[in-house]
Amino acid sequence: MDQVVELSYALDTFYFLVSGALVMWMAAGFSMLEAGMVRAKNTAEILTKNISLYAIACVMYMLMGYSLMYPGDGINAFWPGLPSLLGSADNAAADVIASNGDIYYSNLSDFFFQVVFVATAMSIVSGAVAERMKLWAFLAFAVVMTGFIYPLQGYWNWGGGFLTAESWGIGYVDFAGSGTVHMAGAAAALAGVLLLGARKGKYGDDGSIHAIPGANMPLATLGTFILWLGWFGFNGGSELKLSDVGEANAVALVFVNTNMAAAGGVIAALIAARVLFGKADLTMALNGALAGLVAITAQPLDPSPLLATMIGAIGGVLVVFSIVGLDKMKIDDPVGAISVHGVVGIWGVMAVCLSSADATFIGQLIGVASIFAWVFGASLLTWFIIKKVMGVRVSEEEEYNGVDISECGMEAYPEFTNK
Amino acid sequence: MDQVVELSYALDTFYFLVSGALVMWMAAGFSMLEAGMVRAKNTAEILTKNISLYAIACVMYMLMGYSLMYPGDGINAFWPGLPSLLGSADNAAADVIASNGDIYYSNLSDFFFQVVFVATAMSIVSGAVAERMKLWAFLAFAVVMTGFIYPLQGYWNWGGGFLTAESWGIGYVDFAGSGTVHMAGAAAALAGVLLLGARKGKYGDDGSIHAIPGANMPLATLGTFILWLGWFGFNGGSELKLSDVGEANAVALVFVNTNMAAAGGVIAALIAARVLFGKADLTMALNGALAGLVAITAQPLDPSPLLATMIGAIGGVLVVFSIVGLDKMKIDDPVGAISVHGVVGIWGVMAVCLSSADATFIGQLIGVASIFAWVFGASLLTWFIIKKVMGVRVSEEEEYNGVDISECGMEAYPEFTNK
Amino acid sequence: MDQVVELSYALDTFYFLVSGALVMWMAAGFSMLEAGMVRAKNTAEILTKNISLYAIACVMYMLMGYSLMYPGDGINAFWPGLPSLLGSADNAAADVIASNGDIYYSNLSDFFFQVVFVATAMSIVSGAVAERMKLWAFLAFAVVMTGFIYPLQGYWNWGGGFLTAESWGIGYVDFAGSGTVHMAGAAAALAGVLLLGARKGKYGDDGSIHAIPGANMPLATLGTFILWLGWFGFNGGSELKLSDVGEANAVALVFVNTNMAAAGGVIAALIAARVLFGKADLTMALNGALAGLVAITAQPLDPSPLLATMIGAIGGVLVVFSIVGLDKMKIDDPVGAISVHGVVGIWGVMAVCLSSADATFIGQLIGVASIFAWVFGASLLTWFIIKKVMGVRVSEEEEYNGVDISECGMEAYPEFTNK
Repeated sequence: MDQVVELSYALDTFYFLVSGALVMWMAAGFSMLEAGMVRAKNTAEILTKNISLYAIACVMYMLMGYSLMYPGDGINAFWPGLPSLLGSADNAAADVIASNGDIYYSNLSDFFFQVVFVATAMSIVSGAVAERMKLWAFLAFAVVMTGFIYPLQGYWNWGGGFLTAESWGIGYVDFAGSGTVHMAGAAAALAGVLLLGARKGKYGDDGSIHAIPGANMPLATLGTFILWLGWFGFNGGSELKLSDVGEANAVALVFVNTNMAAAGGVIAALIAARVLFGKADLTMALNGALAGLVAITAQPLDPSPLLATMIGAIGGVLVVFSIVGLDKMKIDDPVGAISVHGVVGIWGVMAVCLSSADATFIGQLIGVASIFAWVFGASLLTWFIIKKVMGVRVSEEEEYNGVDISECGMEAYPEFTNK
Repeated sequence: MDQVVELSYALDTFYFLVSGALVMWMAAGFSMLEAGMVRAKNTAEILTKNISLYAIACVMYMLMGYSLMYPGDGINAFWPGLPSLLGSADNAAADVIASNGDIYYSNLSDFFFQVVFVATAMSIVSGAVAERMKLWAFLAFAVVMTGFIYPLQGYWNWGGGFLTAESWGIGYVDFAGSGTVHMAGAAAALAGVLLLGARKGKYGDDGSIHAIPGANMPLATLGTFILWLGWFGFNGGSELKLSDVGEANAVALVFVNTNMAAAGGVIAALIAARVLFGKADLTMALNGALAGLVAITAQPLDPSPLLATMIGAIGGVLVVFSIVGLDKMKIDDPVGAISVHGVVGIWGVMAVCLSSADATFIGQLIGVASIFAWVFGASLLTWFIIKKVMGVRVSEEEEYNGVDISECGMEAYPEFTNK
Repeated sequence: MDQVVELSYALDTFYFLVSGALVMWMAAGFSMLEAGMVRAKNTAEILTKNISLYAIACVMYMLMGYSLMYPGDGINAFWPGLPSLLGSADNAAADVIASNGDIYYSNLSDFFFQVVFVATAMSIVSGAVAERMKLWAFLAFAVVMTGFIYPLQGYWNWGGGFLTAESWGIGYVDFAGSGTVHMAGAAAALAGVLLLGARKGKYGDDGSIHAIPGANMPLATLGTFILWLGWFGFNGGSELKLSDVGEANAVALVFVNTNMAAAGGVIAALIAARVLFGKADLTMALNGALAGLVAITAQPLDPSPLLATMIGAIGGVLVVFSIVGLDKMKIDDPVGAISVHGVVGIWGVMAVCLSSADATFIGQLIGVASIFAWVFGASLLTWFIIKKVMGVRVSEEEEYNGVDISECGMEAYPEFTNK
């Protein structure tokens, strides 16, 4: 084979692997963000949930999800059918992603990149249902979500399904998944939260709302920075190819726009919180950064850096109002995941119309509506079945004492808190 | 275009983006380091400062700084003029950095790399003024520093200004910015600290000095490791090019020397603290690592690994004496930023003479003096105006209760501390 | 030189440097894991140990270790002999790793990759001897381990020694060091623990075993995620070359298998702990992830992803039983390092037989036995000499008050704990 083609293949594979490693790192980001935002007595459990859901996502996506989401030939010819899982000698021939005789990058690097995306979608759920859900009920949901619910709709956008322009002529444009990943995760979370109900003490009988501050703000901040860094892999890797001038410029623009949108989100959320609450609110600044990142994810390639900053800034304002609004509706989301990934995810999908000629308002709307309908509906059914089979909520006493004791039999900070 | 040239362009762009992502990660490092070094009651505010200053740096550098610092044609022809910000179609043509018909790497990857440097310089300031400054006064300074003060002097060294050998014949050599970034940040910090005064209770009327221990040593250690990792991008990326044997060897040497200087700094600071205080002092070991990194930053390419270790080790000893010395002068710097980045930054610039034939003692001195004079002077003026307009220091009562309550209305560790 | 060859050289060098940076990051992972697993009163000391051992490893390996481990010509011709350390002009010519006229990648990138491996081996020791060892005794051991004990046996496998098939015909296969790095570290740790004895209060006179919970579970979880991420560099970089289709596919498979083994380890350890203790145990899930990673390290290139998951899962079960078993034998290892890296390291080496035709049961066994015998024996002698010269254990009172006070003169969390 031509040595230059081989080198190009190696570079694109490496770019994919580095991007995937950065997305894997987002699992640590979600863990730290959520561990910082809950009370000390529920911290060990949310850490257990986070590392376990990542592991489950990897295994389920290997066994089921990947072939459901990318059933096109070339890929399912070898993965994850039994021959491959058992290590057949034919794998080597199919290790490349090719088209028309050209080869692009290692198929396994593509799998690695996709599998860490699934874990991201699932991580969104764990924060929203924190502090009151049974651990094993959550893990059971993770099996269904990562093996079936997520990949089935992922196929619509990325696997050749009906949301691709080529199939039905609908121009749904969602570059790295504001809708397909983030809103999908938020929809599953919302279904869980509605079935689960609010934490005890969060909403008074008299309509009052009680703030329940997180136990460890440095952890939450660290988690946000980890996610910000990981997002360079999430969006940057979604260009899929790097190895010529046009592609390299595209990846560079994606990095710049991703960074600027997050910066815009921080500043806008900080100012919005200052106006609303009279103080600079750290948790709002953190959520603003994440909102900016979610907002630009659907299209980091077409906007100018200034427009990317604006799209992120609007996300940052939206997230502040959404968090306040959901609390008024008594939808209890301890870390703001439904606002950050759901409400702002929808904004991100719709904002594609601002910069991309390919996107139409109606096409984006159909995408949002169909993804939400499927994920919310399927999740509600799944949560419901789990509730009937094993229950989803810990007892009042267990919730009062903290789920760390009841679910994990240990404390996250045994020496720091006075009980 | 030649496919090999395209591939080379793609590799250099990717190398730049990975380096930039590592430098962005340093923002998390400064946040954790500073959050660990202050008292619990001032932690949420310093986290808010850190994420906000990063966002402000990105926006101000996009709007102003980059074109002030790199006003040469080729670049300012498209950035950040209105056409680019609004997304004109002409951008694509200007997306490459080229010279004499050769193209090198994506211009946007260069912008990404530069913008994270600005944030680094600004991060240095936040630690030094911790525990007593008004949040919004700090953010106002961040706007001026990242939009004007830093880029104007950055131009001297890297944008074609008078510190480049070609312009005035002065051989100021500062590879990745011991002076241009680190000492510049420390000069701005020093100006702020002088105007602000020491924390209440730090220096007794009888001349006594009271240690105020940081609340969370694991965080400070984590921050140091993050910075160490990020520095591979900071110094490694400053070679700007990777794609041939000579450049690849150069980047590898930069990685090795950066690592060895930090290692030398740790060991030297550990021993110096043992001799001075009789114990192994963790904060000194951490500052030793950072001192080694700052010291080698001005020239990680010419020294042998052994010399790099020595340069770092001298930095590690210097930082211990500087921290003790500044305390004697009642210059209150809670995290030691002025010592690490300022005093050792000067050492780093001067140490270039040990290994680089291009560098002259007088040339390096002129660089240090001019950068310090400009940044210190302009910062003092800016801090002074901010003081007149909105005040820079919180009230005594607010300082006593912690700036988290007064500035952010929240606590960083609501369940861990007994107030 | 051919431009394509130069580009290939640059890509392989960059791949090596990125991998090395990820392995360096594992130093932060060990620090956080160990700091989270010990009690608050011993946290500052373990942080000091971790950053210091990394620095010592870098310096000792530069001065001694690298040339002991890779004495072949080509390399020791310039490194780390005096000419190189002093910066002789001949370095440039020797900066490349070449064979038969072909060049591959920068020699210094190879050194950088190797030096961070040494630090990994040494990091394993620090956790096992935590909470009762004298700091300077530990650092003295680090000097001997990283300068002599580790490199001498590293030579057997990777430097051309008797464990390479070419030399004696023994097919010892250990891709990235389940035995050469991890079990070696654990053997040194075991020797230290045996000489040191258990922590006071761990084992009652009546044969009872008292759990001593770690102070900070989020830190321990963060450390595990850092190690997981870093392992992509550890295993991924050990392929040594990336720049053609076959190598790129190999590296991609290594990433996938590394990730899947860790995932398998988490799930298996979680279930094993549920069965044994009736609860989902977070520390076991974390140790399960690490066990999966250690297990796959000896051969991440031959197994299918499903087999890799199984190998990791068996590691995850083994680690749970090993931790329980070592406690029964009153071998006190506060972080489970001997189980994770030693017991599972042996499993990893032996498991190579499941997928690699090159590996024989007897060859793997000889590798394990010879590495263990050398490292354990040499370490025991070294610890013994250190014990005679300066003592290895702090006094009972110092242990009771915490080694932070006695060894570092400071506290890690001065405001969080009630003493």
